[in-house]
Amino acid sequence: MTSTQSIPSNIEVQAEAQTEVQALKHKHLLDLQDWTKDEFLQFFNTTDAMADVMKRTIKKVPALQGKTIATLFFENSTRTKLSFERAARAQSADVVSFAAGSSSLSKGESIKDTLLTIDAMQVDAYVVRHVSSGVPHQLTRWTDASIINAGDGRRSHPTQALLDAYTFRQEFNGFDDSGGFEGKKIAIVGDILHSRVARSNIKIWTELGAKVVLCGPRMLLPEELERKNVTLTNSVAEAVEGAHAVMALRMQQERMAGGLLPSLQEYSERYQVNDEMIKLAHDDCIVMHPGPMNREVEISSELADGERSVIEQQVANGVPVRMAVFYSLLVGK
Amino acid sequence: MTSTQSIPSNIEVQAEAQTEVQALKHKHLLDLQDWTKDEFLQFFNTTDAMADVMKRTIKKVPALQGKTIATLFFENSTRTKLSFERAARAQSADVVSFAAGSSSLSKGESIKDTLLTIDAMQVDAYVVRHVSSGVPHQLTRWTDASIINAGDGRRSHPTQALLDAYTFRQEFNGFDDSGGFEGKKIAIVGDILHSRVARSNIKIWTELGAKVVLCGPRMLLPEELERKNVTLTNSVAEAVEGAHAVMALRMQQERMAGGLLPSLQEYSERYQVNDEMIKLAHDDCIVMHPGPMNREVEISSELADGERSVIEQQVANGVPVRMAVFYSLLVGK
Amino acid sequence: MTSTQSIPSNIEVQAEAQTEVQALKHKHLLDLQDWTKDEFLQFFNTTDAMADVMKRTIKKVPALQGKTIATLFFENSTRTKLSFERAARAQSADVVSFAAGSSSLSKGESIKDTLLTIDAMQVDAYVVRHVSSGVPHQLTRWTDASIINAGDGRRSHPTQALLDAYTFRQEFNGFDDSGGFEGKKIAIVGDILHSRVARSNIKIWTELGAKVVLCGPRMLLPEELERKNVTLTNSVAEAVEGAHAVMALRMQQERMAGGLLPSLQEYSERYQVNDEMIKLAHDDCIVMHPGPMNREVEISSELADGERSVIEQQVANGVPVRMAVFYSLLVGK
Repeated sequence: MTSTQSIPSNIEVQAEAQTEVQALKHKHLLDLQDWTKDEFLQFFNTTDAMADVMKRTIKKVPALQGKTIATLFFENSTRTKLSFERAARAQSADVVSFAAGSSSLSKGESIKDTLLTIDAMQVDAYVVRHVSSGVPHQLTRWTDASIINAGDGRRSHPTQALLDAYTFRQEFNGFDDSGGFEGKKIAIVGDILHSRVARSNIKIWTELGAKVVLCGPRMLLPEELERKNVTLTNSVAEAVEGAHAVMALRMQQERMAGGLLPSLQEYSERYQVNDEMIKLAHDDCIVMHPGPMNREVEISSELADGERSVIEQQVANGVPVRMAVFYSLLVGK
Repeated sequence: MTSTQSIPSNIEVQAEAQTEVQALKHKHLLDLQDWTKDEFLQFFNTTDAMADVMKRTIKKVPALQGKTIATLFFENSTRTKLSFERAARAQSADVVSFAAGSSSLSKGESIKDTLLTIDAMQVDAYVVRHVSSGVPHQLTRWTDASIINAGDGRRSHPTQALLDAYTFRQEFNGFDDSGGFEGKKIAIVGDILHSRVARSNIKIWTELGAKVVLCGPRMLLPEELERKNVTLTNSVAEAVEGAHAVMALRMQQERMAGGLLPSLQEYSERYQVNDEMIKLAHDDCIVMHPGPMNREVEISSELADGERSVIEQQVANGVPVRMAVFYSLLVGK
Repeated sequence: MTSTQSIPSNIEVQAEAQTEVQALKHKHLLDLQDWTKDEFLQFFNTTDAMADVMKRTIKKVPALQGKTIATLFFENSTRTKLSFERAARAQSADVVSFAAGSSSLSKGESIKDTLLTIDAMQVDAYVVRHVSSGVPHQLTRWTDASIINAGDGRRSHPTQALLDAYTFRQEFNGFDDSGGFEGKKIAIVGDILHSRVARSNIKIWTELGAKVVLCGPRMLLPEELERKNVTLTNSVAEAVEGAHAVMALRMQQERMAGGLLPSLQEYSERYQVNDEMIKLAHDDCIVMHPGPMNREVEISSELADGERSVIEQQVANGVPVRMAVFYSLLVGK
């Protein structure tokens, strides 16, 4: 009878994750710039322990009991917010949700004063999303709590990149020493210019020994991203050829209005990731998308719902990845 | 000292509800169409056990600890949502609220992709309200979780009908074998055409052996509802005569704009359930309303606040009824 | 290892707060009009016990487990709502949030019917904010639950005044018998006319033996507030001279539109609380603000962020003060 089981003690959870809790040596998760390969691999081990929790009948541990996590979403994102909240509650934390629209910010209060106010109520970690790059970094100056970047401008979206890579490791027998990334090739296709997901993924895949190919219309493909193991191309065929993973990025329709960019139809004709294109990829190639999808624009429905797709698995992995982030920052330090 | 009491163990709760947990043989609660009389009566017994929990000092049991219930209200309804959330939390479940307005749906994502996304975060049950009939049924194709219909279009509102009937059973010595429904008469007065509450109630009352009279303006009284033990009339006097329960339905003012229907004043003159009308009913007749009320339109304030009214009792019973639904679907299967 | 600690038992918490739980003899917290000096001092002792909880690693006690607290904010206030919710959750209560905008109130349902509906779901306390004075009082007629006023019109904001005075007591060695208020002087500067914070503070400071000076433009300084130990002045210099505490009130820009009042610039030139003004105050003078601030209007940034400022401490104290309110009303009766 499932419901007579009690929540496993925290000691039990720690025993499972015992050797891995040093994964995040830092107080904050702002970006992945100074993470080493070993840190990524250790972090994935911690995530494994959290994924085990989510497979139990009672998907809850007391690791963060008595801790309060505040979500500060200055930019809207239901799916990311839900995922962080689920991860917090699965570890028995209390969650405080702060939506910018309904607050004193609209009465002219500064972000700083808003943070100081919430902070005075004793918060252990803030999950911050903002349309401007650097806001999460700035907040660290004003609070002693941990800051977790849930996406800032075009800059960084570290938990998305961590869950993308963790999903790849699941698929490619990632339990060897290198996590399965060495010598692999990933193609990221779409609006690279505006994508924090692309920037965070470049760091993690190259650090782990994979090659990254960025692909999209010239206007959306910034040359400064080119570096060791990162190449740029306007040809999807070239990008996808032999790739072990292809990630399609959301094409934001509002950006097409300018006139310099192709129309949605032109875009989908030249850059859509679909069954035909994917034939050029490696036999085991997986297909990823950070969501939400524009079906039949940047990705065909056939492919999104097909066997190669790990898109739902990405969302599922978001919960243990974020649990591991909270645990490492707030407990395992 | 109340606060030193601990939450009773789940075993204790199960002992109380032991014989009844088979009440819902199904995985979902979409409608009541295939429920048998015995199932209704068993379900009311389970509800009794839950109602006992809500009479304790500490109104909380651990039955759904570690389970996550998501409310998906595509149509707004504060009272129904609060009731489901209260029922979930009283059993220690985590609640995730998804409001359609603030989501990726507004970025063009389909309901299916939205569901799959939330579902990937591991949800045990969805409570769904939608303006279109059949949406809850459709969702069952895309998830392994339980779907609970919280009202879909004109089709069905099963928990409302269950709480209506449970309230009647409380009043009419419903502890006999038949639940006290045999040979009783209930009148439902108002906009029958658009009412999912009426449709769900027809099923439950007739299955339990009561006679149902539907009453309202001709335009709002669909003939196809006429069947064994269900009669239609335009006369409130005829409907109410000898009735053991009279249920007034909300008259939605926006429907009156068309011109074919009477004005609000004409409606209230001909169809209002009030003290004068209720004199024709059975001596023990109770007065019900699913809320929210338009006082002095479909029901007089005098009657709504009077001795016969069980309107608040209906709302109160909503919590143990929904607790019993969660318990039966998620634990007692 | 912090996370292996368990939540301290309720008995332990009660032992700490044992002698003080009679602090609130009343069922509701509507205003502070009938509170005695001894009640204020006892309440501060209870708050001390709650403040100790918030200093622990695990900031959570089970005192209100199984209790449900509903927030009814008919007027928006993110900071006050968050503070009450934090206080409720720190004592393990369930929280139901009811925002007026998204409810049946917009379908024409009365506040009374809304309250009765929520109340039928079994709520232990309501935290109510409303733009009209007296609404919290009115609600006490319709429910058996406790009503806690979180600000009504210009009338009262008792928890804000309690946390203001508690903060003062912390600073002024308030552990003597009088709480440190006897013979002290507080200046409240700004829009006194529209301020419920000022009205509640007048009661508490005078009851505790302090002198209150109210200061602001003539139009915003209602003469009927003058009484024993309460004086009015248009001169900030006169108000601040020798004061032990200066509280600046938010100057609401929308009120300046009428033409009878000074412009924002004129206001800040004559009434801004700033470093120059504060030189006239007592050497130990503290600076308070109920938030949110208009920096450089009613208060200079220099002063708000300076050594004398206890503005963040006020927000921090809001949580234990509200914990003490819940505890006294719901447990210690």
